[in-house]
Amino acid sequence: SRRAMGRAMGLLVGLLVGLFLVPAVLVSTGFRPGAPHAGPELAPELSEREPGSSGSLWPLPQWLRTSGRRLQLAPSRFQLVPGAGSSAGPTCDVLQDAFRRYYGYIFGQSRRRKRGLGPLGVPREPELSQLEVVIESRDPGCRSYPHLGSSESYHLTVAEPVAVLKADEVWGALRGLETFSQLVHEDDYGSFLVNESEIVDFPRFAHRGILLDTSRHYLPLKSILTNLDAMAFNKFNVLHWHIVDDQSFPYQSVVFPELSEKGAYSYNLIYTPSDVRLVIEYARLRGIRVIPEFDTPGHTQSWGKGQKDLLTPCYSGQKPSGSFGPVNPILNTTYDFMTKFFREISTVFPDAYIHLGGDEVNFDCWKSNPEVKEFMWSKGFGGDYAKLESYYIQKILDIVSSYNKRSLVWQEVFDNKAQLKPDTVVEVWIGNNYPYELSQVTGAGFTAILAAPWYLDYISYGQDWKKYYSVEPLNFLGSEKQKKLVLGGEACLWGEYVDATNLTPRLWPRASAVGERLWSSRNVTDLQDAYERLTNHRCRML
Amino acid sequence: SRRAMGRAMGLLVGLLVGLFLVPAVLVSTGFRPGAPHAGPELAPELSEREPGSSGSLWPLPQWLRTSGRRLQLAPSRFQLVPGAGSSAGPTCDVLQDAFRRYYGYIFGQSRRRKRGLGPLGVPREPELSQLEVVIESRDPGCRSYPHLGSSESYHLTVAEPVAVLKADEVWGALRGLETFSQLVHEDDYGSFLVNESEIVDFPRFAHRGILLDTSRHYLPLKSILTNLDAMAFNKFNVLHWHIVDDQSFPYQSVVFPELSEKGAYSYNLIYTPSDVRLVIEYARLRGIRVIPEFDTPGHTQSWGKGQKDLLTPCYSGQKPSGSFGPVNPILNTTYDFMTKFFREISTVFPDAYIHLGGDEVNFDCWKSNPEVKEFMWSKGFGGDYAKLESYYIQKILDIVSSYNKRSLVWQEVFDNKAQLKPDTVVEVWIGNNYPYELSQVTGAGFTAILAAPWYLDYISYGQDWKKYYSVEPLNFLGSEKQKKLVLGGEACLWGEYVDATNLTPRLWPRASAVGERLWSSRNVTDLQDAYERLTNHRCRML
Repeated sequence: SRRAMGRAMGLLVGLLVGLFLVPAVLVSTGFRPGAPHAGPELAPELSEREPGSSGSLWPLPQWLRTSGRRLQLAPSRFQLVPGAGSSAGPTCDVLQDAFRRYYGYIFGQSRRRKRGLGPLGVPREPELSQLEVVIESRDPGCRSYPHLGSSESYHLTVAEPVAVLKADEVWGALRGLETFSQLVHEDDYGSFLVNESEIVDFPRFAHRGILLDTSRHYLPLKSILTNLDAMAFNKFNVLHWHIVDDQSFPYQSVVFPELSEKGAYSYNLIYTPSDVRLVIEYARLRGIRVIPEFDTPGHTQSWGKGQKDLLTPCYSGQKPSGSFGPVNPILNTTYDFMTKFFREISTVFPDAYIHLGGDEVNFDCWKSNPEVKEFMWSKGFGGDYAKLESYYIQKILDIVSSYNKRSLVWQEVFDNKAQLKPDTVVEVWIGNNYPYELSQVTGAGFTAILAAPWYLDYISYGQDWKKYYSVEPLNFLGSEKQKKLVLGGEACLWGEYVDATNLTPRLWPRASAVGERLWSSRNVTDLQDAYERLTNHRCRML
Repeated sequence: SRRAMGRAMGLLVGLLVGLFLVPAVLVSTGFRPGAPHAGPELAPELSEREPGSSGSLWPLPQWLRTSGRRLQLAPSRFQLVPGAGSSAGPTCDVLQDAFRRYYGYIFGQSRRRKRGLGPLGVPREPELSQLEVVIESRDPGCRSYPHLGSSESYHLTVAEPVAVLKADEVWGALRGLETFSQLVHEDDYGSFLVNESEIVDFPRFAHRGILLDTSRHYLPLKSILTNLDAMAFNKFNVLHWHIVDDQSFPYQSVVFPELSEKGAYSYNLIYTPSDVRLVIEYARLRGIRVIPEFDTPGHTQSWGKGQKDLLTPCYSGQKPSGSFGPVNPILNTTYDFMTKFFREISTVFPDAYIHLGGDEVNFDCWKSNPEVKEFMWSKGFGGDYAKLESYYIQKILDIVSSYNKRSLVWQEVFDNKAQLKPDTVVEVWIGNNYPYELSQVTGAGFTAILAAPWYLDYISYGQDWKKYYSVEPLNFLGSEKQKKLVLGGEACLWGEYVDATNLTPRLWPRASAVGERLWSSRNVTDLQDAYERLTNHRCRML
């Protein structure tokens, strides 16, 4: 009546009960110096890791030494504080919010239970009294937004009597706080313990994204925020917000309010300017960039409802059929609209990048329309509608560029030979032969991010996280210089079959596999080891 | 970057906003007389159904007539009450609990919002003041448990000024209350409306089950209860509780407490006697039977931890290997244990049936054990270990039978030619060629239930509910008499990858497809119509 498989996964719930007995083990890896994804990568020598030491760290840090010596934390006394010499102090909201947040993650409801000392007030182990966080850069980043070039590296030393977390910028401190919280474990008697440890850590890739699609199904704000929390637990740093598409237009534009009035599923299934600000700020406090995608010229059916003449009228024979195709690329009014629209988007979203889409443009409607045909003729495009698409996209790229924003585009824009600015990022998504596409894109000198192997909306039976985990993004033909052009990747959860009822269990911990692949060293590939850490990590996230 | 599919599902959330505008339509189906799954089945003539009329009924009733005349319900006045001549009155707890429950489903939080009358107190439509429930059988069933032979048929008439729901037994009233609640809809102004209607309804199959597996992952009581609610919304009537298996033994036995002490994932991941009683009572109040499965002789690794010598020691060469196989069928102590164990089970679970498992017995360990070999020789079984399995199973069947319980078994028990009592139910689960197996089982005169095409733990991308919906259980070679031996079917959610975090969205509304297949008339097969009703039904369940 069922198969013998799955015994291991069957233990997950069993693990929810605290198994956090930590024998004293010495664990260390060789230190891997040098820049991310450059040079040889040493094999970690981790062994006998247990929950609470590196046995529950996810993603695995670049370098780690931990000892058997345990320190005890007193919830009533332990503090997270700015350290001496830090350029970010008590007025740094990113840090202060993180201190409060991580205090809660580490001790849960414990403070109330354990107010005061135990019967004798004598700790069984030496006490760790605080974690001092020192930001070393002159500009810690407290009031700014994380960006592609932000430093996320940190150096964590846990030793009696204080732990010290050093980072160039607050973004690295956020990553280090997450790691510190993963080091602390509760023993059978409710004591909070941490092994003396030293960790040097930094991301392998600078762009580590999750794509959420709020057009196929509207996602309530709460779902998006919960997902941002989960992203922070896995050191993701980009929310790729595929905010509108054919199915609905939930983004409430100030300049063009009819887009959501007519294009959203309903008057209340929208993201108001205040909602959008909330998402951006919640993300910022977790070191996460928010890159909105306004995909054109295809995937725009919902735009047409609130913006007259924006879409191409399709023809059936000699007459308009009543249906509409992609954005109409031959009208000046189209570009007037896009100029105003992207002016708004450029101010609403602080990130330096905007995703412009450009994928899956169906040419049938353009081909049916006599005015489009005439335009093609006048421009000398012949019958090559990819040229028309490129004509359109280049204009959009220029508009966005005029607002000092850079662009991300789906791979077709590159494939169709649009003239791209050198700082355009090409997102590779087509499943078959993506290594070849990465070769081509980087060979042409463009930066790329990889999504193709990580379409997490495609569910299947069993532990498919192993498939996502086993992807090696740089396993394509190309020079070292080309490899450096791969900025990272994204796990995509398209929304056809996803809404608030299943988003979290469908995305996590499957996306965690992608998180480790994009953060940890290239040689961190042991599935059994990953399985054990991921199991603990899932329990912690729950 | 994504496919054009899924537009329709994409509308689900859109539908969450009240689209419950109900134009007046006349909808009717032909009345199909006769016993369930016997005789020709008339095609429903439903057309232009809308949410609120039959457009949101799930599963579709056997016969339905609805008019365009709408009645209004006042939350502050509307009552569910026992009708004149009912054999079940205000002391019938099944009914009283259902009245309270369905009042809540129908009006939600509205009573508070709408205390008193509107500005003028003049209803826009004629008012429906109450639903009178009349139980006609001399024994309404208020204090008993639902069973395989219970009547679930009902006759619902909604007309001014009162609606009347007639049923033989309270179990039919529960089904009719669910249908009534599905007929009531809220309009754009917050008014509760119901179309005048008449419904005659009964299940096509008597056994309509959901299998939950609490061994691979422990399911908290709350998850099980939530699932029972969802089952009632879909007119399921059997919870097949696959309570223990190799991975864990969460059932707390009074006679053998060590089984869960040693065999559960943890001391708190168990079902105490009080938990079990709660599940059974919660199910009873919803007209749902609870059939426990204690699967032997395979799938019993967790039993071995708390019961010495119960499992067969496997040999490696001449010596015990230290691992264990299926239950040891050659020891008297095994049958002493089973006699006591099933005596307890027979009293704890009130249902007339116990599921004894009997699937997937691996013979390797038995073959390796010299004492088992000697036993085979002494019994004249030769090398046919299926005979040893049958020998064991027959003894277990006899034990259970001695407690006046009937048995369900997985199909291997039949395949291996165990001597079964005529009232044994054979559950067909092996995926390939299940129609042939149904022919064989019913051809031998046994009753059967079908699970094979409904293993809902096997997830896949997209709308796989259509696959489950399109199964026709009686589409196998056999006489009319054989077809009548098919008692129904079960949707199975094995627990390898299921726990409290994903149970509900993984099972529902996919299992609803099976629910309609097992309740509604054979000719209810229109996928588009089902899609629309299921969409509304999902919103209502949410």
